Amino acid sequence: MDNSGNRRDPNAPSENGNSEQDFQYKKVDDKPDKKEEESAESIEKIFESKEVPSWKKQLTFRAFFVSFILGILFTFIVMKLNLTTGIIPSLNVSAGLLGFFFVKTWTKFLEKSGLLNQPFTRQENTVIQTCVVATSGIAFSGGFGSYLFGMSDVIAKQSTEANDGQNIKNPSLAWMIGFLFVVSFLGLFSVVPLRKIMIIDFKLTYPSGTATAHLINSFHTPQGAKLAKKQVRTLGKFFSFSFLWGFFQWFFTGGDGCGFVNFPTLGLKAFENRFYFDFSATYVGVGMICPYLINISLLVGAILSWGIMWPLIGDRKGDWYSAVYPSTSLHSLQGYRVFISIAMILGDGLYNFFKVLGHTIFGLYNQIRDRNSRSVLPVGSRTSSPTDSLSYDDQRRTQLFLKDQIPIWVAIVGYITIAIISAATLPHIFPPLKWYYIVVIYIFAPTLAFCNAYGCGLTDWSLASTYGKLAIFVIGAWAGASHGGVLAGLAACGVMMNIVSTASDLTQDFKTGYMTLASPRSMFVSQIIGTAMGCVISPCVFWLFYKAFHDLGVPGSQYSAPYALVYRNMAILGVEGFSSLPKNCLTLCYVFFVGAVVINGIRDIVGKKWARFIPLPMAMAIPFYLGAYFTIDMCIGSLILFIWEKIDKAKADAFGPAVASGLICGDGIWTLPSSILALVGVNPPICMKFLSRKTNARVDGFLKS
Amino acid sequence: MDNSGNRRDPNAPSENGNSEQDFQYKKVDDKPDKKEEESAESIEKIFESKEVPSWKKQLTFRAFFVSFILGILFTFIVMKLNLTTGIIPSLNVSAGLLGFFFVKTWTKFLEKSGLLNQPFTRQENTVIQTCVVATSGIAFSGGFGSYLFGMSDVIAKQSTEANDGQNIKNPSLAWMIGFLFVVSFLGLFSVVPLRKIMIIDFKLTYPSGTATAHLINSFHTPQGAKLAKKQVRTLGKFFSFSFLWGFFQWFFTGGDGCGFVNFPTLGLKAFENRFYFDFSATYVGVGMICPYLINISLLVGAILSWGIMWPLIGDRKGDWYSAVYPSTSLHSLQGYRVFISIAMILGDGLYNFFKVLGHTIFGLYNQIRDRNSRSVLPVGSRTSSPTDSLSYDDQRRTQLFLKDQIPIWVAIVGYITIAIISAATLPHIFPPLKWYYIVVIYIFAPTLAFCNAYGCGLTDWSLASTYGKLAIFVIGAWAGASHGGVLAGLAACGVMMNIVSTASDLTQDFKTGYMTLASPRSMFVSQIIGTAMGCVISPCVFWLFYKAFHDLGVPGSQYSAPYALVYRNMAILGVEGFSSLPKNCLTLCYVFFVGAVVINGIRDIVGKKWARFIPLPMAMAIPFYLGAYFTIDMCIGSLILFIWEKIDKAKADAFGPAVASGLICGDGIWTLPSSILALVGVNPPICMKFLSRKTNARVDGFLKS
Repeated sequence: MDNSGNRRDPNAPSENGNSEQDFQYKKVDDKPDKKEEESAESIEKIFESKEVPSWKKQLTFRAFFVSFILGILFTFIVMKLNLTTGIIPSLNVSAGLLGFFFVKTWTKFLEKSGLLNQPFTRQENTVIQTCVVATSGIAFSGGFGSYLFGMSDVIAKQSTEANDGQNIKNPSLAWMIGFLFVVSFLGLFSVVPLRKIMIIDFKLTYPSGTATAHLINSFHTPQGAKLAKKQVRTLGKFFSFSFLWGFFQWFFTGGDGCGFVNFPTLGLKAFENRFYFDFSATYVGVGMICPYLINISLLVGAILSWGIMWPLIGDRKGDWYSAVYPSTSLHSLQGYRVFISIAMILGDGLYNFFKVLGHTIFGLYNQIRDRNSRSVLPVGSRTSSPTDSLSYDDQRRTQLFLKDQIPIWVAIVGYITIAIISAATLPHIFPPLKWYYIVVIYIFAPTLAFCNAYGCGLTDWSLASTYGKLAIFVIGAWAGASHGGVLAGLAACGVMMNIVSTASDLTQDFKTGYMTLASPRSMFVSQIIGTAMGCVISPCVFWLFYKAFHDLGVPGSQYSAPYALVYRNMAILGVEGFSSLPKNCLTLCYVFFVGAVVINGIRDIVGKKWARFIPLPMAMAIPFYLGAYFTIDMCIGSLILFIWEKIDKAKADAFGPAVASGLICGDGIWTLPSSILALVGVNPPICMKFLSRKTNARVDGFLKS
Repeated sequence: MDNSGNRRDPNAPSENGNSEQDFQYKKVDDKPDKKEEESAESIEKIFESKEVPSWKKQLTFRAFFVSFILGILFTFIVMKLNLTTGIIPSLNVSAGLLGFFFVKTWTKFLEKSGLLNQPFTRQENTVIQTCVVATSGIAFSGGFGSYLFGMSDVIAKQSTEANDGQNIKNPSLAWMIGFLFVVSFLGLFSVVPLRKIMIIDFKLTYPSGTATAHLINSFHTPQGAKLAKKQVRTLGKFFSFSFLWGFFQWFFTGGDGCGFVNFPTLGLKAFENRFYFDFSATYVGVGMICPYLINISLLVGAILSWGIMWPLIGDRKGDWYSAVYPSTSLHSLQGYRVFISIAMILGDGLYNFFKVLGHTIFGLYNQIRDRNSRSVLPVGSRTSSPTDSLSYDDQRRTQLFLKDQIPIWVAIVGYITIAIISAATLPHIFPPLKWYYIVVIYIFAPTLAFCNAYGCGLTDWSLASTYGKLAIFVIGAWAGASHGGVLAGLAACGVMMNIVSTASDLTQDFKTGYMTLASPRSMFVSQIIGTAMGCVISPCVFWLFYKAFHDLGVPGSQYSAPYALVYRNMAILGVEGFSSLPKNCLTLCYVFFVGAVVINGIRDIVGKKWARFIPLPMAMAIPFYLGAYFTIDMCIGSLILFIWEKIDKAKADAFGPAVASGLICGDGIWTLPSSILALVGVNPPICMKFLSRKTNARVDGFLKS
């Protein structure tokens, strides 16, 4: 599971999906369904008495102010996750909760002072949600932990190939912001015309978007508001705990290898093989959100790789690979780690690409056939008329969804304008990326964006990173090794990912808006504003990390940015072929590539019942490169949730996500003060060091002398 | 508050008492009183249908087997506490709970297999309780953390006075067991004749004994058994947690100054002044049992001494005391620490000695006056006839209490026999302790034992250690410096303490037996067996510690046995006077001695309402020598309980003691495997070290080279 695979996973059909999806999916599973069963069509009836404000009134200043604050918060969190492991859980629930909490507090305060001229509606809540998702989405699709940082010389130096000047582009605030501005809005415009088709005509589920809508709807019922208040309080408690814990840990990190993150919890031998619990509140929280299968898959992968394979390959040192290279070189053991995980990620990614593509084509074919067969029938005889048979909810929602249209020419003009600007400016930023590559990408992009949005609606899985990898290989090979193919590939990946990723994200948002009666026009404006904020906030936050932590991207450090190396090496592979791989590595890669495909195939064949006992290859691949420590954190999170569910299922379901969000947010936001402290040169005073007894005796002797 | 002061405190009148008392006292306060009010005389009515087994049947093999196991468990715990800080909380509740749990499990098992020939009665429960208290009592009154270990050369070497051969007696298994056997049974026999007077005639309260009886009675009602089961489960959970935590900590202590016990939680500067949280489950548990006032007093004392006074005196280095001596020498800062705390302990001890003595004499005077006035009246006209006005409970209890008598000649013959054996053998163990000193002690001892038992019945405070200190000064001065006065004083302290301590403990037990209808005869036998077990178990456990931890008694180490040094220095003071004290130390001692008396006086004058805001001088004196770390643990325990009580008072009251006991027992019993590991030479593999950033940089440089 790679950086983006983690954001969207096919769990609608197989219950195994990733954090965000599965979690959201659970929500859909548990509550709304029941609600709808018990009191069918009740949701809009409950809100019937409440007036829906006009689209302009949905866009309030306070909404964007709160979005801005939350956008910064979540950008920090996503950035930290990007740069540590690349596993990004769903932050939708915390965004929803916190957005609700902030505006509610604000309106309550105004209400008391008699200044409130507009009540807090669920439409406004949706606008905040949309804006925050758009903002923090850039932190992911901007590739700060993958393709973009993969261009830097820190990462390039780790391999001996393609580390010449033309394949390197070091981060700088100016070009990053420029790059994001010219590529991030394309997805937005490409989705606008498809909006109605996806949501009204095709009635795609969009599990995440639906779940978010249910959450927002539930907040605005009196009972839901009460529960939300309690959840927010729980979130706040664990937020503070997690923040203070991060603060406490900081004091003991006065040097390399110091502090709790280097705690050899399971012994020194296990620590050397990266098996330890590193006391990270973030990953315990992530583990609580991710489904059990993901956590188990991670653990299985960790045991398979760091427990068995790497020690065995390590024994071949001097035979399979030269002992001359340092352990971080891709020509030593590190090479096996990186390339085998790339093989597994590609195997899983391609399998799912074709699977989702198949679903998409099959689904589209059915839709079109239905339409055609319907259109030849007389109007009255339609078996499933789109308006007649609609529930009250759907009628009202469709009515409001179609009220505020966005003219299609806006979308087309917008897309073409930005495409031209983009094609003109990008070659200046990345010289190897010629303008005609960009034009080609932009011709195919809307189709791929549509595919991704449609597939995501069906399976809840965005394949953005797979499309990005496709671009790496295609454009990289086209440009060729001698013309900066690596940099061109990485940049093309960025262009492609930004389009397809925003396309699926924003269609999800439209679904949410549809279900909360938010105007598509206000959603669109909110997305534009959110994307624009993201284009500024994300590079700034990355810049803060980049300047504050000098070992950013260095293997084994706290912020090792694992996917930056993975992406760069994919680009190298695409451009230069397999020549650079150490002995037997290619064979192993084939084995794991095929293994990933086969395991996925078996998962699909045996059916849901057994699939939940078969680990996910993509999840298994992550610890291959990183080590087991974060999987142990996550399994502990799982274990906590498991025990909690055993003790009190209802409470665990209601408050588990809040606890997890609190843990993730608190630790994530601690990175803000910690990076500021690092920037201004305040160093932690103490080093908590772990030495073997023998070394300790030597050190004691040294200190006494 | 010194080693023994900690076991009995005057909290019956003032609610401030120590752990054991207060905790027990609360129990008496909360539940039984209510119960007695609501359904007066109901307790024995509930048990009316249950037959009371004969005294021989109360003494079952299983009871003594369980007592033996629990005796070992609690001896370990008490020994650990003796040797770390000297604060010993009440383990009665855990003893009661665990005893009940073990026998209940055992009988249930037998019941199911159809082999049960005798049900588990509360009398048998009382026998276990009595036996365990007698066994673990020896671990305290044996002085392994005070007078007995104070004789060793490890402690003697720390002062320059009286460290010649005749004032040193190193621990050895043989003489310790012998010593305990000849001194421990005297208290037992001296109490027997007083039993009826104290309990039936004087009707003394004995808060601890009463509370224990209520606990045991409640266990044997159906509802109580249910609660007890839950409590035992909670205890078990926290026991396991605490044990595993101890185990986990062990791995990181591979060297001096390593591990969690040296965690500079509040920073390195605070750590130097012994302000840190040392992650000790034991003292968090102790803090939960001890009343808030004790914990606050400890903290106030710690701040006053380590936060203010010692740094100030440290600045006078070279002026007030020579800079030549090492920091652990009594001629340097250490001297101020030790002697000022002795002064405070003596001030508080003497104040309370005279206070309790006053109470005793006044109480006795009233009792005798009543008797006299009663006996001159005609029989029929007695206003409060001892049997007429008695409640059903009291009638039944009195009847059964008087049924099985212990002939008075047994007591007298036993006492004289043991006294003769003791006087004949002790001088062989301690040459400076002449036989006539012992005879003098034994002539006064029964009176003092009576005083202590009576005072304890009134105020729940045993003054055993104060009587012991009296013996140190009297016998030490009598023997004189040139004739091994220090050793003689310490040995005399042991003889005295053993008598008066067991006297009060066992009268408490008789009260418990009275209220649970246990036969005095079975109690007596149980006490004898328990004491005998204690005389063997305690020295063995101490021996294990002594052999396993080579830094036993070294200041600053984990097992620094603080009171050993304090007791030895009292003996030196008694023999040699104040000549050895550093500059201004005597003045400060006077100030703190008077301060302790004055604070106590104020506490008594202002009344209960205000007294609870005035710290206890004895509690303040403990951290003077030891540092603040355990007070921080204890305050955290307090804080946890405080928050728990705020959230759910009923649950906190019912399960708080179980949680605390679990924490204490688990950590305590971990010392068994840990000392065995140390004995067989298995050393922890890792050192968790804490270095300042600067030192760490040096160490990193050293390790790289």
